[in-house]
Amino acid sequence: MKVVQFDRFGPAHEVAHPVETAEPEPCAAGEVLVEVEAFPINPVDLLTIAGRYAARPPLPAVPGSEALGRVIAIGDDVTHVAAGDRVLMLSRENWMQRKKIRAGEAIRIGVDADPLQLAMLKINPPTAFLMLTRYRDLSAGDWVIQNAANSAVGVHLIRLAAALGIRTVNVVRRADAVAPLEARGADVVLVDGPDLAERVQAAVGDGNLPLAIDAVAGDATGRLAACLAEGGVVVNYGLLSGEPCTVDPHQVVFRGITLTGFWLVKFLGAMSPEERTSLYAELAGRVASGDLRVDVEALYPMDEVGAALAHAARAARGGKVLVTPNGPLSG
Amino acid sequence: MKVVQFDRFGPAHEVAHPVETAEPEPCAAGEVLVEVEAFPINPVDLLTIAGRYAARPPLPAVPGSEALGRVIAIGDDVTHVAAGDRVLMLSRENWMQRKKIRAGEAIRIGVDADPLQLAMLKINPPTAFLMLTRYRDLSAGDWVIQNAANSAVGVHLIRLAAALGIRTVNVVRRADAVAPLEARGADVVLVDGPDLAERVQAAVGDGNLPLAIDAVAGDATGRLAACLAEGGVVVNYGLLSGEPCTVDPHQVVFRGITLTGFWLVKFLGAMSPEERTSLYAELAGRVASGDLRVDVEALYPMDEVGAALAHAARAARGGKVLVTPNGPLSG
Repeated sequence: MKVVQFDRFGPAHEVAHPVETAEPEPCAAGEVLVEVEAFPINPVDLLTIAGRYAARPPLPAVPGSEALGRVIAIGDDVTHVAAGDRVLMLSRENWMQRKKIRAGEAIRIGVDADPLQLAMLKINPPTAFLMLTRYRDLSAGDWVIQNAANSAVGVHLIRLAAALGIRTVNVVRRADAVAPLEARGADVVLVDGPDLAERVQAAVGDGNLPLAIDAVAGDATGRLAACLAEGGVVVNYGLLSGEPCTVDPHQVVFRGITLTGFWLVKFLGAMSPEERTSLYAELAGRVASGDLRVDVEALYPMDEVGAALAHAARAARGGKVLVTPNGPLSG
Repeated sequence: MKVVQFDRFGPAHEVAHPVETAEPEPCAAGEVLVEVEAFPINPVDLLTIAGRYAARPPLPAVPGSEALGRVIAIGDDVTHVAAGDRVLMLSRENWMQRKKIRAGEAIRIGVDADPLQLAMLKINPPTAFLMLTRYRDLSAGDWVIQNAANSAVGVHLIRLAAALGIRTVNVVRRADAVAPLEARGADVVLVDGPDLAERVQAAVGDGNLPLAIDAVAGDATGRLAACLAEGGVVVNYGLLSGEPCTVDPHQVVFRGITLTGFWLVKFLGAMSPEERTSLYAELAGRVASGDLRVDVEALYPMDEVGAALAHAARAARGGKVLVTPNGPLSG
């Protein structure tokens, strides 16, 4: 079978190639063998292959943060999935034709939905969903504010919020990002700046805005804090600015604003298997309903993974690039 | 009777004077008349008189953040205090010989303890106690870290922590502050610097350090965050640096550190009268036991309040300056 591998760090389309390797051993207890149907090429994959992600793997290495597959075989004691089931793979190093994973990493998908969309379900949708729902108990009509709103997570958050009746203030860095987000259902889109809080106040009026989602850090954290209702929380999950989070003590002390952080790995790790399954069932249902949808620009077969990687690295894309390592999907 | 008053903002000893005024009207329902036994001169009073505190009162104004007194009379429906009771006054504008306050502002003191110490019970002791006890459930042997450790709140926190069996890492800005804090029971005292986290790690070893108390803000906030155990919380309550709180997203996202703020006014306002009474009963008990103790440098009568204010404004003092507006205390 074929697996994508890189022997040195560098531009992904130059250093990562499909290579022939032995089929996985038969399943032991607690293991599940999966035939991989599709995997997306994510920015984190390109960073990992370039050696620019926090954790550099020992070489040679197999990339692949996300994948969807079908169960081929299970270990003796595995009961929650069976051969033929479609599963979201919570494993890493997924870019291969068949992969043996731990039973807990196989999340059975019970709904009928576009498999390409399901292949992108592991990371960004729960990131948006958990940040939106687990820090404040928002009611329909309440507001949330986020920056980097035109990111993958940001767009999911807009759609999920809209589905829950929660209104969004979306902060972007450039004016040309405003119209596309409005077209996706954003209630308010504003270009970041020193007077952000005043413009947000004007847009929100007497609405309740207790939650801010921060992917930028630096001064942007404090600008979000200043927009919140008393007692609100800023949830940071990224540092696009490369700067530390900065918040005025006035916000923290007198207005009771809290700054906290979100890391999906930790959040999922603290959940029971049942809670994880339930979370992804909810999200898969939202793929089926159309609430969650990522534009797809191109599909590549396993042999053309180099071209797929070059395509994914282009700045100007209209959607995601995916690979179907066992040929076209039957649906 | 006499009341301290200022007609313009400026240096307290120049602009604040005792003036003759009418006695308070008889108590209406829900009111308590108190004869003021003693009040301390706090930094916040000097700042308020100077016009440099956040809220500038309309002029002329009466200062006085803290005071202790004895009940002289009560309104018809007041049942929790009686004439003769000693009460901590939660009111402001307390620098007068007799003051009528709302019943909820009169906290009966049931223990026999030094009245000068009780006159300083309203602000700093609960600030230290609530920050120490309400953000993390610390057990004996656990650690807390604080900066500005030689402040009034910092010294209370050292004493309260020691009484609860909690160990303290105390961060100061100058080496000459180390020995005096060790003499007061500080477990570890360190001078702040870029390698703070390493030195704290060396001091604490495998001890549990989940709570940081930050009065400085700026980079100091982030330095405390880096010292904490995973999932720890930084509680900010001041900005001695004049800079915004700064925390690396690595701390917030990957190590689960939270930044939050403490404001006594808000905390007390959210408590029921019973909770407030119980809080101050606990603290008054710790005054009686000697756990809480502030050095007193001088006592002044009402007519010499100008000299008292000049004394309190001196940088080099060995303790607090208080005024006994109705003459020497009987004990």
